[in-house]
Amino acid sequence: MILEKEIQFILALDALKSVNRRNFNLDDSRRENTAEHSWQIVVFAQVLLPYAKEKDQIDLLRVIRMLSIHDVVEIEAGDTFIFDESAMTGKYERELAAAKKTFGILDEPLSSEFLNLWIEFEAEETPDAIFACAVDRIMPFVLNVYGSAKSWTEADVKVNQVENIVGKAVKRASEEMGEAFDILLKKALDEGKLVE
Amino acid sequence: MILEKEIQFILALDALKSVNRRNFNLDDSRRENTAEHSWQIVVFAQVLLPYAKEKDQIDLLRVIRMLSIHDVVEIEAGDTFIFDESAMTGKYERELAAAKKTFGILDEPLSSEFLNLWIEFEAEETPDAIFACAVDRIMPFVLNVYGSAKSWTEADVKVNQVENIVGKAVKRASEEMGEAFDILLKKALDEGKLVE
Repeated sequence: MILEKEIQFILALDALKSVNRRNFNLDDSRRENTAEHSWQIVVFAQVLLPYAKEKDQIDLLRVIRMLSIHDVVEIEAGDTFIFDESAMTGKYERELAAAKKTFGILDEPLSSEFLNLWIEFEAEETPDAIFACAVDRIMPFVLNVYGSAKSWTEADVKVNQVENIVGKAVKRASEEMGEAFDILLKKALDEGKLVE
Repeated sequence: MILEKEIQFILALDALKSVNRRNFNLDDSRRENTAEHSWQIVVFAQVLLPYAKEKDQIDLLRVIRMLSIHDVVEIEAGDTFIFDESAMTGKYERELAAAKKTFGILDEPLSSEFLNLWIEFEAEETPDAIFACAVDRIMPFVLNVYGSAKSWTEADVKVNQVENIVGKAVKRASEEMGEAFDILLKKALDEGKLVE
């Protein structure tokens, strides 16, 4: 049938609605799933772009495309909690295999386009990927600061872990996002949501 | 605080993760929420663009931006089942007020940019909006055809309703999407998922 591969691809992606992240929704009713998270960062990128250091070199369409598919690998490889160091071992290889499998449902050139966007995002080297990565990292941080931070407290996440993994990526991309990060990190610490 | 409005906006949008649509996820485990749906059509648009009739006049970034925020109004106005004619009365006015309120959290120019994208999407007149609308309509149709179509059968949705509301929008945007629609509509009818 015409559009068979396109339809099989989008049906395969439906599984992301059932991949739960560690993070909770703002109202703490449940953990967010990866599909919801991907949508929220697609919107947040549009709002934060004016504050990106290299905004004149950033292609918002490429950033949004990256963000919309960067977690598709979790269908095959599952979500890995970013502060769980042991689980992070071998993550790239697992996810690269998953990316090839899922994007491989599609014909060229779309299959390689998505795979290359995924690889670029993971490498965090281009202006697009640096900004996209900062948006991806600051989103759950903001939800934790304004929610009850259950995903942090249940795992005893430490201030320096958040500084290393969220703060550095955010500050590399934007001074204003970095300033907001510092203010909110202090607020989280004051409220006992993170341990020293 | 710097980024205060941007953060308040994205926190307000978190509520979309709790707005349930009539439609079910492919695995029928639960109704999908509007945040997930918005993500899925952002991806589907990227895959379907090569088949758009007016693809040379379509700006994929604008399409994706429209799709990512077109349902934000449901935070205030709720989801309206597209086949429920009585509930559709007054929908535009309710949603326009909601759009102004939610996008109004942001400063200009972003506030008006989002509002204008929302208005353009609803009007279904520009090449970008016609294509975006087709993607938005075909997504739940595909999930119903490949799932158990609970949202159709529980409301006794008729073939001609789907033809009028989904089929017309899809055929206006793309011949190939229209062909796939016809094949899948027949499949749904054969399987008793729709009534004559």
